[in-house]
Amino acid sequence: MIPFLDLERVNAPYMQRIEEAAIRVLRSGRYILGNEVDEFEKSFAAYCEAGYCIGTANGLDALTLILKAFAFPEKSEVIVPANTYIATVLPLSFLGLTPVFVEPEEVTMLLNPELIEDKITPSTKAIITADLYGRSCEMARILELANDYNLKVITDAAQAHGAAYFGKKTGSMAHATAFSFYPTKNLGALGDAGAVVTSDKELAQKIRYLRNYGSALRYQNEYKGMNSRLDEIQAAFLHVKLPYLDKENKRRRQMASRYLTEIQVKNLVLPPTDRIQEDAWHLFVVRHPDRTALIAFLEANGIQTDVHYPLPVHKQEAYKEYKSLKLPVTEKMHQEVLSLPLNPVLTEEELTYIIQTVNRFDA
Amino acid sequence: MIPFLDLERVNAPYMQRIEEAAIRVLRSGRYILGNEVDEFEKSFAAYCEAGYCIGTANGLDALTLILKAFAFPEKSEVIVPANTYIATVLPLSFLGLTPVFVEPEEVTMLLNPELIEDKITPSTKAIITADLYGRSCEMARILELANDYNLKVITDAAQAHGAAYFGKKTGSMAHATAFSFYPTKNLGALGDAGAVVTSDKELAQKIRYLRNYGSALRYQNEYKGMNSRLDEIQAAFLHVKLPYLDKENKRRRQMASRYLTEIQVKNLVLPPTDRIQEDAWHLFVVRHPDRTALIAFLEANGIQTDVHYPLPVHKQEAYKEYKSLKLPVTEKMHQEVLSLPLNPVLTEEELTYIIQTVNRFDA
Ligand SMILES: Cc1ncc(COP(=O)(O)O)c(/C=N/[C@@H]2[C@@H](O)[C@@H](OP(=O)(O)OP(=O)(O)OC[C@H]3O[C@@H](n4cc(C)c(=O)[nH]c4=O)C[C@@H]3O)O[C@H](C)[C@H]2O)c1O
Ligand SMILES: Cc1ncc(COP(=O)(O)O)c(/C=N/[C@@H]2[C@@H](O)[C@@H](OP(=O)(O)OP(=O)(O)OC[C@H]3O[C@@H](n4cc(C)c(=O)[nH]c4=O)C[C@@H]3O)O[C@H](C)[C@H]2O)c1O
Repeated sequence: MIPFLDLERVNAPYMQRIEEAAIRVLRSGRYILGNEVDEFEKSFAAYCEAGYCIGTANGLDALTLILKAFAFPEKSEVIVPANTYIATVLPLSFLGLTPVFVEPEEVTMLLNPELIEDKITPSTKAIITADLYGRSCEMARILELANDYNLKVITDAAQAHGAAYFGKKTGSMAHATAFSFYPTKNLGALGDAGAVVTSDKELAQKIRYLRNYGSALRYQNEYKGMNSRLDEIQAAFLHVKLPYLDKENKRRRQMASRYLTEIQVKNLVLPPTDRIQEDAWHLFVVRHPDRTALIAFLEANGIQTDVHYPLPVHKQEAYKEYKSLKLPVTEKMHQEVLSLPLNPVLTEEELTYIIQTVNRFDA
Repeated sequence: MIPFLDLERVNAPYMQRIEEAAIRVLRSGRYILGNEVDEFEKSFAAYCEAGYCIGTANGLDALTLILKAFAFPEKSEVIVPANTYIATVLPLSFLGLTPVFVEPEEVTMLLNPELIEDKITPSTKAIITADLYGRSCEMARILELANDYNLKVITDAAQAHGAAYFGKKTGSMAHATAFSFYPTKNLGALGDAGAVVTSDKELAQKIRYLRNYGSALRYQNEYKGMNSRLDEIQAAFLHVKLPYLDKENKRRRQMASRYLTEIQVKNLVLPPTDRIQEDAWHLFVVRHPDRTALIAFLEANGIQTDVHYPLPVHKQEAYKEYKSLKLPVTEKMHQEVLSLPLNPVLTEEELTYIIQTVNRFDA
């Protein structure tokens, strides 16, 4: 059986250094916002070609902190992609902001920039782009729109560590970018972790306070802040793994290239091939009208797949107030998408087997 | 120099098993909501003599999750102690609830039950008790009031692991209790961690979903939930330390007894002696009209102290809308309180030295 993702194998090459890092931190007596977080923040900001990085407890909190820092008035509207993981949208609800769902572009499945302008009203304050599957959204067009309408651009890059857009690193383009280091991500911690990346100094400072009870100095609270800190021990793990992210992403690109050139099945839609080298290939998402049959066929042949995601945000019980909203492109995608295994520890043999098996599917 | 708290020394007796636990978890490949969290939750619920425990990312989130689960209408009023750490109050602000500050009782410095009834209005939905310094609030009176007015009682027990109130364990009395396992707490993790404890099955279930994006089943979201999970690795550390909590609290009680019987200084007010054996003695907080002089004197004699806390919540910049509120008992306390070192690794010699030095203070 080829598992969709085997985290033990993914972390194995780093395990010795991860264990050493754990022991160093445990023995240091310093567990909250110390040197390990500082150093990782500096390295990750540099990696993203951005000014500042602020470690957070997770990716959802990173988005929440960005939105809290912008302090848009309640009921402000924020453009969000209809095709995304629910965590892109939840922070808006916490802060009394209104998500305005925009359909994806057919080929990339990402926020369709051509549909944004129609949705902008005097209450719109920001656009959230979600770089789903590891691919950057169409930032040129989106930043232009944001500029024209004086909107903030926030990128949810939970799935796109190390991606780029025409030479610009993810994290260097939006006003602020949220990363998740959930264990399954391209850069994954060994527990929950996240970060905000921005080049706006004041915003960075405010988020730094907001993640720590709103406190600038000990026991003095300037803002009504959260508690959302990156743990020292997780920062140390991330610091061990960061230097290998580019190498791992390169491996992901090679695998994606093989999939893209070698898979050929009737009715199976592959992801676009135009930006293979800048995509971080967190997931390799194909589409098929009879997804259920394809999953069963692959499973029967020892290949585990996954679905990202089966149910769109506006169809979740949590968002039942949007139940009657019609977003046909998004809805169709959620019925057809299927993720094939793609991660840096798959062997060429496994890859060949997956490709051959997929190519045998006939439905 | 006797440091106020030396975490390296505090964790030293457990360090070997903590390291073993770290390595076990790291090698397991399972980092989020697995067996370690499950097992710690069961043990901690049992320890608190309560039905359920739900691990969370930290203590502030534990309170936030409880309040989210109760889903009081916006602008509902919640009684909170005016003398507390700001994290007791922040979750109310996140959810659009109105804190109604109540002054502490002079001797215990905890929420004065006699002042609560006057503050109850038709909008009041809950009372938050904060078991500051490790001492339980007057639960009999408070639960009676809550019963009379149909209010929920929520305990912030961030400082009171293992405390009791007339034989009832903290965590077993309120409708829900929030714990923090911040590294400096009586039961401290080696990073951020927290938990909710409750005996209400439905509430426990809802909080379990709410800490995990509101998700019951993978990719199905019933509620607009947060991301606030206890890390597997931190759960494993807590599980190593929990069996020793009672022994450590006993040691704290012995030290508190010595302080209470041996310290005698003009104008220095000691904590009450009536419940030494049920207090968890997270902090040993004395009061003196010339705190600054006392701190300087102790510091000059090699004893580090701390102040919990220097500035009340309603005087924080974050709560400037309450700036003109007059809470004279609280304000006076914040000018006079001083925490002497008290933690399980202080030696009898250090204790004797602290007592003798304090007794030499004359101001
Ligand atoms: C666009 C976007 N925005 C914001 C966020 C929010 O970021 P967050 O707050 O940091 O979670 C996400 C997160 N997104 C992810 C989401 O994509 C999904 O990720 P996933 O990879 O499908 O996660 P999973 O089901 O837990 O794991 C997949 C497999 O991996 C194996 N595994 C997993 C774990 C955790 C393990 O320890 N050991 C294992 O062996 C077994 C599982 O079958 O579900 C997570 C809970 C979210 O954090 C996002 O995609
Ligand atoms: C009533 C109440 N309700 C809710 C909460 C919120 O819970 P939380 O969200 O889990 O923080 C609190 C938390 N309360 C605590 C609060 O009491 C205070 O605790 P504190 O012990 O004074 O913390 P500190 O200043 O970080 O540490 C004290 C000393 O300990 C040493 N130290 C500390 C750390 C962390 C270390 O790694 N290594 C060290 O050597 C050096 C420091 O001088 O400040 C914290 C940030 C809060 O979590 C509370 O008291």
